[in-house]
Amino acid sequence: MPTSSKSKKEAKRLAAERRAELLAQLKDLGDKAYTDLNAGQFPQFTFPSRSVSNIVYDSKLKQYILGKTNVKRSSGNIKHIRPFTQLLWLAFFADKLVHQGKTSTLRDVYYSSQAYNMEFVDQAESDEIITDLEAVLSRAREQLKIYPEERSAIFGDLTIEYTVPGYEGNRLNLSSHPDGYLIGPSLSTAEFVDTSAEMIIAVEKGGIFTRFVEEKVHKRYKAILIDTAGQPPRSTRYMLRRLNKELNLPVYIMSDGDVYGEHIAMVIISGSANAAHLRDLTVPTAKWVGVWASDVVRYKLPTDPMTEADIKRAQELKKDPRYTGGVWQRELDIFLKIKRKSELEAFSKYGLTFIVDNYLKEKMQEAKSL
Amino acid sequence: MPTSSKSKKEAKRLAAERRAELLAQLKDLGDKAYTDLNAGQFPQFTFPSRSVSNIVYDSKLKQYILGKTNVKRSSGNIKHIRPFTQLLWLAFFADKLVHQGKTSTLRDVYYSSQAYNMEFVDQAESDEIITDLEAVLSRAREQLKIYPEERSAIFGDLTIEYTVPGYEGNRLNLSSHPDGYLIGPSLSTAEFVDTSAEMIIAVEKGGIFTRFVEEKVHKRYKAILIDTAGQPPRSTRYMLRRLNKELNLPVYIMSDGDVYGEHIAMVIISGSANAAHLRDLTVPTAKWVGVWASDVVRYKLPTDPMTEADIKRAQELKKDPRYTGGVWQRELDIFLKIKRKSELEAFSKYGLTFIVDNYLKEKMQEAKSL
Repeated sequence: MPTSSKSKKEAKRLAAERRAELLAQLKDLGDKAYTDLNAGQFPQFTFPSRSVSNIVYDSKLKQYILGKTNVKRSSGNIKHIRPFTQLLWLAFFADKLVHQGKTSTLRDVYYSSQAYNMEFVDQAESDEIITDLEAVLSRAREQLKIYPEERSAIFGDLTIEYTVPGYEGNRLNLSSHPDGYLIGPSLSTAEFVDTSAEMIIAVEKGGIFTRFVEEKVHKRYKAILIDTAGQPPRSTRYMLRRLNKELNLPVYIMSDGDVYGEHIAMVIISGSANAAHLRDLTVPTAKWVGVWASDVVRYKLPTDPMTEADIKRAQELKKDPRYTGGVWQRELDIFLKIKRKSELEAFSKYGLTFIVDNYLKEKMQEAKSL
Repeated sequence: MPTSSKSKKEAKRLAAERRAELLAQLKDLGDKAYTDLNAGQFPQFTFPSRSVSNIVYDSKLKQYILGKTNVKRSSGNIKHIRPFTQLLWLAFFADKLVHQGKTSTLRDVYYSSQAYNMEFVDQAESDEIITDLEAVLSRAREQLKIYPEERSAIFGDLTIEYTVPGYEGNRLNLSSHPDGYLIGPSLSTAEFVDTSAEMIIAVEKGGIFTRFVEEKVHKRYKAILIDTAGQPPRSTRYMLRRLNKELNLPVYIMSDGDVYGEHIAMVIISGSANAAHLRDLTVPTAKWVGVWASDVVRYKLPTDPMTEADIKRAQELKKDPRYTGGVWQRELDIFLKIKRKSELEAFSKYGLTFIVDNYLKEKMQEAKSL
């Protein structure tokens, strides 16, 4: 169903609202330190522990979440002073980024700390503190303008309105450039204004994405196409969730016919254990439509043997609570039985357009009953 | 200097001309087989050998080229029948792709062969034959519509006109989407219509590309920005060459402060040994502006120690003919002396905008005398 078009004023209001909420949260964090000090107490932060023992699977939310154990970073504890200070500095730095409308990367944050004589032994340590701040705020680092290096892409009839400085209020329809538009900081923070699309189709590979554009999948299925470029970066998972929630569009995922492909779909749907402290990165209603192990058999696809590592991974996933029942267990079992794997490109055996004209068509038909 | 705008008619004519030349060349290849047969001879192909002993450095062209040794694939030689047939089939398949305006990937070609009962043991074998066909035609596989999986990106004031089916004649200015436009089959084959840009600046990383857009490098330097996403895929090197030649714009390259960064710049400028059979992938006049080993010292950048592998690589490159003299040898020597490496993000030590406001500015000044 097409959504109603969003007015420029409305788009601007929503973006401003989102920004104000975030800045208020950061300000509260700083205020709390002052309040503690004024009350003659050592400032401290309390937030959910991300230790393995506190990561539990929530079968209702269909994702990993953090349990009830909290950790404390107190400036009154000599062992805590370092991470406490780092966390406070990071909140200050994120506040700066948001105020200035500048983006950065995990790597940038590590080096930026040196401008403030803030010490991190290595990037692993600053990455850890960034995740702590995510847990404190319950917000993904992308909202704090800290982005990953990897970028995936999008194509289709979707009009967006930018909220980044220099482009605020500009609108763009994402169907003019058939090679695709990178999903970076500007797109992740844009408002969705208008679309005629009725679904999202995410594929794992750039080559297949291009094939889909060439074969007009976006028109034939009224779809917005996403190239996840392998395991999608978190900003792309966040984007998929927004497209799903805000535009009320179903999401279909097509990945390689191997356990890693199956897991790409799973992470889009149910998230990952190391993002258990976040809620904005899953698409619980998304559907994995292929390539299933059973498709590998059914379509007599060219295959390669599974390696020892592939088999081990499949056995691990079989015990993973996210993989309980349904298509997930069934397909893992078939992978372990046939011990073969395949790829999206393997359909080219039947001609370049078979994957769209036949496979996608049949799977989308099947998906209706999933 | 801004180029004069290209008319739609002119853009269309150029694209048609390019396509006709390619198709004529493929037709000649098939014709030759028939001519041989009619003359009672076994059809055969002759093309330059790509064996290591036939790869020589041309100091005038400043790139590796193939020497005078030729190889033959004759249908009259039982050992040659397999690669001869594979090559002929590939030419037929490429002709189909070009006629239908469809793109494919190396992986696709491997699987597509099975639709024709054409046997390749694995993708390595089909990749090899694709390179043979490149050598036969002296054309990069991208012209035959065979693309790599990796994609890099572009941003800036450049109006292009698409030549791919479904978008022919459509024009797009590449400055509306600040996250960047993927450089895929559509962009690689587009005509360049109009630009106000006076230079091209290529950077190695998506995060720095975004920083450059945010800090308006495209406006401050009247530049078209390219994110090479590491070692640029060949379609991006081809794109850089076209921007340089067709728009008469200088190309500047900024990569990480390590031997791999130096080599990224070198490959853009002088190409790689395994593309010695091609001439359309180098930008001999491009300039590597940083991050030099001497910059690592001069700017007191945060560094990591070079690994054994890094040191070995630097020693190898020192003997490489492309690295003779000038900045290339000097910087390798400094890397080997300091035994430290750095990254573009390391400038964040001095604040997020230092890399643009200071470093880029100083290096572009310096580049004038390079």
